[in-house]
Amino acid sequence: AILSAIEAFFADGPLKGRHAIVTSGPTHEPIDPVRYLANRSSGKQGHAIAAALAALGARVTLVSGPVNVPDPAGVNVVRVDTAREMRDAVQAALPADIAVCAAAVADWRVEEAGQKIKKDGSGQPPALRLTENPDILAEISAPGPQRPKLVIGFAAETEKLAEHAAAKRARKGCDWLVANDVGGTGIMGGDENEILLLTESGTEAWDKMDKTALAQKLAARIGEFFA
Amino acid sequence: AILSAIEAFFADGPLKGRHAIVTSGPTHEPIDPVRYLANRSSGKQGHAIAAALAALGARVTLVSGPVNVPDPAGVNVVRVDTAREMRDAVQAALPADIAVCAAAVADWRVEEAGQKIKKDGSGQPPALRLTENPDILAEISAPGPQRPKLVIGFAAETEKLAEHAAAKRARKGCDWLVANDVGGTGIMGGDENEILLLTESGTEAWDKMDKTALAQKLAARIGEFFA
Repeated sequence: AILSAIEAFFADGPLKGRHAIVTSGPTHEPIDPVRYLANRSSGKQGHAIAAALAALGARVTLVSGPVNVPDPAGVNVVRVDTAREMRDAVQAALPADIAVCAAAVADWRVEEAGQKIKKDGSGQPPALRLTENPDILAEISAPGPQRPKLVIGFAAETEKLAEHAAAKRARKGCDWLVANDVGGTGIMGGDENEILLLTESGTEAWDKMDKTALAQKLAARIGEFFA
Repeated sequence: AILSAIEAFFADGPLKGRHAIVTSGPTHEPIDPVRYLANRSSGKQGHAIAAALAALGARVTLVSGPVNVPDPAGVNVVRVDTAREMRDAVQAALPADIAVCAAAVADWRVEEAGQKIKKDGSGQPPALRLTENPDILAEISAPGPQRPKLVIGFAAETEKLAEHAAAKRARKGCDWLVANDVGGTGIMGGDENEILLLTESGTEAWDKMDKTALAQKLAARIGEFFA
C-alpha cells in the first residue's frame, strides 16, 4: 500500500495534484449497546471509485463506514461507524478538489442510545424516536470557500428513478448525481451497477457494467472535467 | 467438511446419536428495501458451540443469521436473515435432543417494509412502527412431544446480570441459561466471553475465557447431562 501510494504520488495522470474525498459503505446508527440501524451498502462502488481516482493520479481520502471489502491500494482510508462520524471525517479532510459521496448515509438515527431496550411485559413494542442525521452531501455542496470544484452525489432509489434523481440533484446542490435503482435487483451488495449520470449538460443512461468498470469510466469523466 | 461430517458420524463421543440444534449470529429485520435493523452478534460463540457439540459426536444443525465467520466443519448449516426465517428453520429441524439458542434474535421487526422510506420535506422523521418477533426460545421450551430434552437459552444483558438472567430463565422455560454482560466490554464481536451459567442446580460464574474454550466446556457439560 505504501509503494502504491508513492506510485500514485508520482503518477502523471489527469488528476495529478488533485485531492479527492470519497465516502463509501453504509453507516451504522446505534439503537442501544447491542442493536443498530444499518443498510445494505457493501462499499464496493465507493471503494472502486477511490481506487480509480488514485490510478489517475489523485490523492484520495476514502471515508468508509463498516464494510467487508479490502482497502484500495494507494488511498488514505478513514474508518467511521455513524453519519456524524462520517461528516466530521469529511470536514477534517477538506480542502479538496473533488468530493464523491457514494456512501449510503443513514438519513436518521435513534434519538438516545442508552441501556439495552427490553420487552417491558406490556406486549407493546417500544417506539424508536428518530432524529435527522447531518446531510453530508448538502453540506459539502453549499457555496463557500471550502466547496470542492466538483461534488458528486449518489441516489439509491426504488421507484421513479429519473424524477427522484433530478429532484435530489437540485435539492442537494451537487454538480453531478449518480442514480441507481436498488429495488429488487442485486445492485446493492452485488458486483454490477446500472446508473443514470445527471450533469450540468443532461442525463445519460449508462449500460450495466461491473462496479470497477463503472468506477473507471466515472473517474475518466472526472479527469476530463479537470482537463 | 464432508470428511469431518463422516468423522463426526462415526465419532464415539458422549453425544453420539444425539441431534442438536444451535442458533447463532444476529438476525436482520428489513425496514425497507435498503435499510434494516441489526445487532452486533458476530456468531463466534454460537458457531464454536456447534463445532464443540459435533466434536463430541452429536449431529448438529446450525441455524445461522448473517455472519462473517466460517462454517464449522461437520455441521449442517442453515442460513437465514430474519427472526421469522430462523423460527421456521428451527421448527423444520426438529425433533432434537438439544437446543442451544445462542443467536441474538431481534425482539422486534418493522411492521411493513415497503418502498424505500424518504424524507418527506416536513422535517419530521418517520415513525418506525415495531411489532414483536416470534420468541424462538420460549416456543422451543414450551412443554410438548417435540420439546428437546435440554434447552439452553442465552441472555445478553447490560445491567443487573444475575437478576435479569434468572428472570429470563423462568420466563422462557428453558433448562439452562448462559448470561453475559455485553455493555461496554468487547464481548459482542470479541473473541472472549465471561458468563454466568444458570442450571436447575444453581448459578455458576465461569472465568473469562476464549469463546472456543467456553464452547468446549459447555459441550462437555451437555455431554455429562446425557451420560
